[in-house]
Amino acid sequence: MVTICVDAMGGDSGTEVVLEGIAQALEADEQLQVLVAGDADVISAFCEEHERALPLVTTEVIGMGEHPSTAVHAKKDSSIVRGCLAVRHGEADGFFSAGSTGAILVAATMNVGRLKGIKRPALATAIPGASGRRTVMIDMGANADTHEDMIVQFAHMGRAYAKVTLGVAEPRVALLSNGEEETKGSEQAVAFHQALKDAGGDSWFAGNAEGTDLLAGRYDVIVSDGFTGNVALKTIEGTAKYIVGCIKAATKKSKLMAIGALLLKPAIKAVAADLSGDEYGGAVLLGLKAPVIIGHGATSALAVKNGTLVCAKAVREGLVDKIAAEE
Amino acid sequence: MVTICVDAMGGDSGTEVVLEGIAQALEADEQLQVLVAGDADVISAFCEEHERALPLVTTEVIGMGEHPSTAVHAKKDSSIVRGCLAVRHGEADGFFSAGSTGAILVAATMNVGRLKGIKRPALATAIPGASGRRTVMIDMGANADTHEDMIVQFAHMGRAYAKVTLGVAEPRVALLSNGEEETKGSEQAVAFHQALKDAGGDSWFAGNAEGTDLLAGRYDVIVSDGFTGNVALKTIEGTAKYIVGCIKAATKKSKLMAIGALLLKPAIKAVAADLSGDEYGGAVLLGLKAPVIIGHGATSALAVKNGTLVCAKAVREGLVDKIAAEE
Repeated sequence: MVTICVDAMGGDSGTEVVLEGIAQALEADEQLQVLVAGDADVISAFCEEHERALPLVTTEVIGMGEHPSTAVHAKKDSSIVRGCLAVRHGEADGFFSAGSTGAILVAATMNVGRLKGIKRPALATAIPGASGRRTVMIDMGANADTHEDMIVQFAHMGRAYAKVTLGVAEPRVALLSNGEEETKGSEQAVAFHQALKDAGGDSWFAGNAEGTDLLAGRYDVIVSDGFTGNVALKTIEGTAKYIVGCIKAATKKSKLMAIGALLLKPAIKAVAADLSGDEYGGAVLLGLKAPVIIGHGATSALAVKNGTLVCAKAVREGLVDKIAAEE
Repeated sequence: MVTICVDAMGGDSGTEVVLEGIAQALEADEQLQVLVAGDADVISAFCEEHERALPLVTTEVIGMGEHPSTAVHAKKDSSIVRGCLAVRHGEADGFFSAGSTGAILVAATMNVGRLKGIKRPALATAIPGASGRRTVMIDMGANADTHEDMIVQFAHMGRAYAKVTLGVAEPRVALLSNGEEETKGSEQAVAFHQALKDAGGDSWFAGNAEGTDLLAGRYDVIVSDGFTGNVALKTIEGTAKYIVGCIKAATKKSKLMAIGALLLKPAIKAVAADLSGDEYGGAVLLGLKAPVIIGHGATSALAVKNGTLVCAKAVREGLVDKIAAEE
C-alpha cells in the first residue's frame, strides 16, 4: 500500500473538485491510500465515506496570491505545510497539491528536504509530442534564476524522471535555446550548452532545441532555466486555447463548420486536454526526498486523479532513489 | 510611388516562390515599384515581363547556415548586402528578404544604419489574438542578450510599430515574464519591470504578461529579451503544427472525423496560416533609418507578397519618423 497526502484545499476550482479527484484515484488504484489534508468540515464526511481516505485535519489555507515564504512561515497549520510534514514524518510517501506553486516549493524544500548534493529542486512535466512521444520539460518555473551547475543537475533529474515516466532506457537531453547551433543563444544559454556538453558529452547530450521542438517528440528531455521553461509551457497552453477558440468562433458563422466541429470534437477535445496538463497530472518537483506533485491552479478532478496516481507511481518505481543514483 | 528592394535569392523555398510573391505584390499595389536583387539569370526575364520591377543584378548569395558577420563581410556583392546598400543610397525606400535573419541584421545595421540614439535594432512582429486583436511582439530574436536600457527602447519602438500596424492611438506595453506580480521573474525580468515602470509609469506600461497572454489580444505590445521572445514565437509555431498534426492523425482513424476535418478545413487552415507568420509577412527590424522586413525562412509567395506590402505601408506611414519621435 502506498500513501499519498493530497491537499484538499488547493486549487482555484474548489474543494469538491479535489475530493472528486481523490475518489477517482482511490477507485482506479486499490493499492492506494490517501491522507486528505484540509479543514475538518471539508474532509471529515469524505474520509468517513471512503475507506482508504484518512483525515489530516488542518486549520489554515495558503491562498494562491500570498507571498510564498511569508505564508509558509506564518501558516504552520496550513494544508500545504502539514502535508509536507506528513511526508517528512513518514505518514505519507508523497504529496500532491494544486495550490500555490511558490508555497509548495518553499514548504517542500524546507519540510520534505532536498536530496544530498541537490542545489535546488526543479519542476518537471511530461508534455505530449508528435507520434505519441512525450518529452520531459525541466525546469518549468521553480528557479527563475538558474546557474550553470544547476542546469546540469536539472538534466540529470530530468533523465531519471524520463526513465520512470516515459520508460526510456537512455534518455537524450536537449537544451532549449533560440537556435540549433551551439554558438546560438544568450551568454547564459551558450554557457549552459558548454556545461551540458562537458557533463554529458555525446552519451546523452543532444545539443540545442528550439521552441518548435517542444511538441515534436524529438528529445526525451528538454532542459531550460525556470524562466524560459515557464514562458514556453504557458505559451503552449495559450496557443492551444487560442486555436480552440478560433475553431469555436468559426462554428458560429457557418452551419457546415458547426457540423464539422461536432464530428471532430473527440479529437479536438483530446488534444486540448492533453495540452492543458490535466492528462499528465501536473508538474513534479524533483530533487526532494519524496515525490511532490504540483497540480495546475485551475485544476479538474481528472488532474487531481492523475496527479495522485503519478505520485503513487513515482513512489513505487523508486523515482527518488533513481535521481540520487543519477547524480 | 514607393520603391521596395526585395531579395530574390532569400528563403528556403526557391527563387520562383519569391518572384511569384513579388508579382502578387505588384498586382495588389499599383503605387509600388520593386527593385529585385539577385542573380541575372534569376531576375532578368522577370523584370522584363513586369513593368514596375527593376533589376539589381548581384553575383553572390548568403546561405541560411553561414556565419552572419563573416558572410556579410566576405560577400559584398550578395543580394542582402547590395539590397541594404540600395536603401542607403536612396535607390529603395525599404528592404525585404526571407534570407538569413542574422545576415540581414548585420548587413542592415551596417548599411542602412541605426536611427540616432538607438542602441540595438530589434525584431518585431504582429501576432494574432483573441477577438481579432493583434499584439506586437518585440524582440523576436535580434538580441539574445538584452540590457535594461535596451528593453525600454524596444518598448518605445514596439509602441511606434503598434501605432502604424495596428492603428492603436496609445498602445499599452506589457513585459513577458513568468508571473503577473512585479516581484515575479528572473533578476533580469524584475530589473526590466522596474526600468519600464520608470519609463512608462501608468501611462503606457501595463505590467507583466505571461505566455498565456501572447495570443489573448490583451496587450498592444509585449516586450521581452530576444532569447525569450524567440523561444515563445517558435513555441507558438510548434504548438500550432502539433495540433494540426493531431487533427490530421485523427482523420486517418475515423471516417466521421475525416468528414469533420473537411468541413472545418477553412477554419483550421486560416488559424494555421495566421500562426505561421505568412499573413503578417514576417518580422520588422526596428531602429534603422528605413524599414527592413525579414520573412520566414520557409517562406511562401503569400509571405513575400505581404512582407513587401507591409514594407511599403511602413514607408508610406512614416514608421521610421514615428520611431525617432517616440524616443
